[in-house]
Amino acid sequence: MTHFEREIREQPGVLRRVLADDTLSGVGAQLRHAAPSLVLSLARGSSDNAVTFFAYLAGIALGVPVASVPPSLVTVHRAQLLARGAVIVAVSQSGESQDVVQALRALSERGARSLAVTNRPGSSLEQAADLAVTQHAGDERAVAASKTFTSQMMALSRVVAEWADDATLRASLSAVPDAVEALLGDTAALQRAAARLTHAEQLDVLGRGLSFGPALEIALKLKETSYLHAHAYSSAEFQHGPIASLGVGDPLLLLGLPGPTLETTREAAARVGEAGADLTVVASDPRLLELADAAVPLSAGLEPVTEAFVQVVAGQLLALFLATERGLDPDAPRHLNKVTQTR
Amino acid sequence: MTHFEREIREQPGVLRRVLADDTLSGVGAQLRHAAPSLVLSLARGSSDNAVTFFAYLAGIALGVPVASVPPSLVTVHRAQLLARGAVIVAVSQSGESQDVVQALRALSERGARSLAVTNRPGSSLEQAADLAVTQHAGDERAVAASKTFTSQMMALSRVVAEWADDATLRASLSAVPDAVEALLGDTAALQRAAARLTHAEQLDVLGRGLSFGPALEIALKLKETSYLHAHAYSSAEFQHGPIASLGVGDPLLLLGLPGPTLETTREAAARVGEAGADLTVVASDPRLLELADAAVPLSAGLEPVTEAFVQVVAGQLLALFLATERGLDPDAPRHLNKVTQTR
Repeated sequence: MTHFEREIREQPGVLRRVLADDTLSGVGAQLRHAAPSLVLSLARGSSDNAVTFFAYLAGIALGVPVASVPPSLVTVHRAQLLARGAVIVAVSQSGESQDVVQALRALSERGARSLAVTNRPGSSLEQAADLAVTQHAGDERAVAASKTFTSQMMALSRVVAEWADDATLRASLSAVPDAVEALLGDTAALQRAAARLTHAEQLDVLGRGLSFGPALEIALKLKETSYLHAHAYSSAEFQHGPIASLGVGDPLLLLGLPGPTLETTREAAARVGEAGADLTVVASDPRLLELADAAVPLSAGLEPVTEAFVQVVAGQLLALFLATERGLDPDAPRHLNKVTQTR
Repeated sequence: MTHFEREIREQPGVLRRVLADDTLSGVGAQLRHAAPSLVLSLARGSSDNAVTFFAYLAGIALGVPVASVPPSLVTVHRAQLLARGAVIVAVSQSGESQDVVQALRALSERGARSLAVTNRPGSSLEQAADLAVTQHAGDERAVAASKTFTSQMMALSRVVAEWADDATLRASLSAVPDAVEALLGDTAALQRAAARLTHAEQLDVLGRGLSFGPALEIALKLKETSYLHAHAYSSAEFQHGPIASLGVGDPLLLLGLPGPTLETTREAAARVGEAGADLTVVASDPRLLELADAAVPLSAGLEPVTEAFVQVVAGQLLALFLATERGLDPDAPRHLNKVTQTR
């Protein structure tokens, strides 16, 4: 078994550890008390995809806007950002991405409180921050992130749930490990969907709201492990231009969630279908699955937040199966190292 | 001549009209006086790419963070965002994108001031906002935006320059129309670069800092007019994963700007070159152009902000020439209308 597959399968256990971590309740209570009016986020790569998910959740559950700060704005352009009243949320698996660490230090000096989310207690990022939470993912040996991504999603979601003191959100998060476990036990539809993509050169991945972060992450996994030119779009944005690039038979992966985005996601599915897309749908909604050329049905009855985690794991499995179909080693993507330093 | 080409060539005149508009000085002075600590941006499609450019410029010149608010967060998810002390910057060419108008109204009720940037005096968006500036682009008949994009960039840049009362930035913006005119008079290198892409199926477009918004917009133009699966990345982000999808001979378009990002952009160019990319470079820097398989040299001696406008027009011309090579009509992309409504 590859590291990537083993690490995908470890996720229910990792997520249970994040759910059991009382530190997160304390951090949430401190943020509730401090009541920041703005989040300044710092992250790169997969971590930034987890932040995209967090930004929707923080907007919905807390009403707090999230401004994504490209680290280079601070470290390269030396921008003197207004930061008083804000909390920095900095996310890095290794805690050693130097541009993220430097940007956190510079913004802290300008009056912001800070929270580090890392998988490494004692890392540089954690040491530089006022508050810290850990991902509890253990060592990740595949270069492509899997359990470190969903544990970031979970840690950030728990920060929101505790900050908002939101019992409904807490319950939705508690349901995640079992739901992921159920998916891991039934992967036949994903294997079929992967086989249909064997010869694809590119793929559009569409999500919206709480499934937009998952769409970004799934596109990244497909690039890293299967060398597929996969690109994520908000399904709303896609109709503002990118849809022109869609030719008859072009593959498209659509993520659907229950809740307020479902109806417009159905409309998007119908529209890309009319444009000739070869459509794979990962969703629980039967009316959305009906529109698919390849359907990957998820368990029904989950809250949107819960299903978003299951979607991500479905996408990881799709990337794993596609890499296998293509004879590629998902543990060691070309051109990449585990800790990427950028300036 | 297609509408798209005619509208590309109208840009120096349009940009001069935006530069001559005194309303912008007044709007900038009002913002300086109100001193918002945060911008909440609302935009879709090309307009959102202009906002990405604005967000870097506002960070650098004003230190004001920009939180991009997906309209659906307000209109679909009904998020009750904290907005007091913020200014909404809403950008829509038509001023009639209903989700942007509705989101502006909802955020205004929560205490934010608002500025509308549109090409339509009297539009719904302008009527809903406290302050308004116009793009002065006249009718745009091609579905793919060209002059309405650069006029948004210019209007937003002037808002920053006047708000910051920044004479250096004002001078850099004043130099734009002549610089664009010079490029329009010498397009041979762009025609050669387009010919080399005739059979490409996908393309990665890399920019960074002030050239990241241009990269997003150029990728969108290539999708809309040439049906090329073009996707933009920050050149820093690209090295955190997406580079794995880069195979030997895969085409890549890199945008370079003078200033603080130049050295790391040279490093990125070297790295994608080593990974086997077929590299087109649009830049003024000779050491960056040296690394290209196809070089598109821009005039030297311009400020980064000025060169960013020239880059965008270079990308528009590349899209025009590629569409022509491919026998496509850039005025009428498949699947698209001029005013896209999303919910």
